[in-house]
Amino acid sequence: MKPSKQRSTCALSSSLDILGDKWTLLILRDILFIGKSSYGEFSQSEEKMATNILADRLALLECQGIVTKTVAADKKSKFTYRLTEKGLDLAPLMVEFILWGHKHCENVVDTALLLELRQDQAGTIRKYQDLARAAALPSARL
Amino acid sequence: MKPSKQRSTCALSSSLDILGDKWTLLILRDILFIGKSSYGEFSQSEEKMATNILADRLALLECQGIVTKTVAADKKSKFTYRLTEKGLDLAPLMVEFILWGHKHCENVVDTALLLELRQDQAGTIRKYQDLARAAALPSARL
Repeated sequence: MKPSKQRSTCALSSSLDILGDKWTLLILRDILFIGKSSYGEFSQSEEKMATNILADRLALLECQGIVTKTVAADKKSKFTYRLTEKGLDLAPLMVEFILWGHKHCENVVDTALLLELRQDQAGTIRKYQDLARAAALPSARL
Repeated sequence: MKPSKQRSTCALSSSLDILGDKWTLLILRDILFIGKSSYGEFSQSEEKMATNILADRLALLECQGIVTKTVAADKKSKFTYRLTEKGLDLAPLMVEFILWGHKHCENVVDTALLLELRQDQAGTIRKYQDLARAAALPSARL
């Protein structure tokens, strides 16, 4: 998927130009809150993302500087995806999606993450950002 | 657009089932932050939403209980769209899109809203929610 043309100078619209679909934020959720980092792991998520959509969104996220793609430490034919600071800055946005979904969507399961967010939203966001930063350190890949 | 089938019990995924596209949140932005309320006003936004997409998303938002649709006070052939409490609960999410876009997207214009958000994010969200609630009161339509 090529990044769509910027439709206006509005910040909300410009964010949606990049993130406005049903799949992109699910990949970022998997990295930030579940600790996934590989194509194989993303493809096994409950939402069953089609492989062409997954490959397309990963390329877009890399092109936009939201994730980095590096050769995996354990296997040279595998790639590891990590969040950049630009990607980590999406944590508060993802959390608002989670809180709204918990409040207003049916058949949504209460998770440990939700309990953490209800107790300390800002602290929980920082915790997961720090965990993702630590996973991205070179020492974590040895 | 029919609401898509719920893909999982994840709150983020379930929110994206409803809101995951490039247009839906722009309509809600127009209502909440710009004070628009009619099809004609939405169709004039800078992003030039196609009329079939606009009609489709308005129907989805009404079906999901995110907006209400009532006959306009000034013209019986016109409809007025207002946010419900479920819709107003999307204000923090829209704000996070705005803040991320301002920080990370190019060619985005600084607005008075951004300055307000930087000074007092929670207070600014409450202010616009209150304004939207007041506009939805029957007295505001006389």
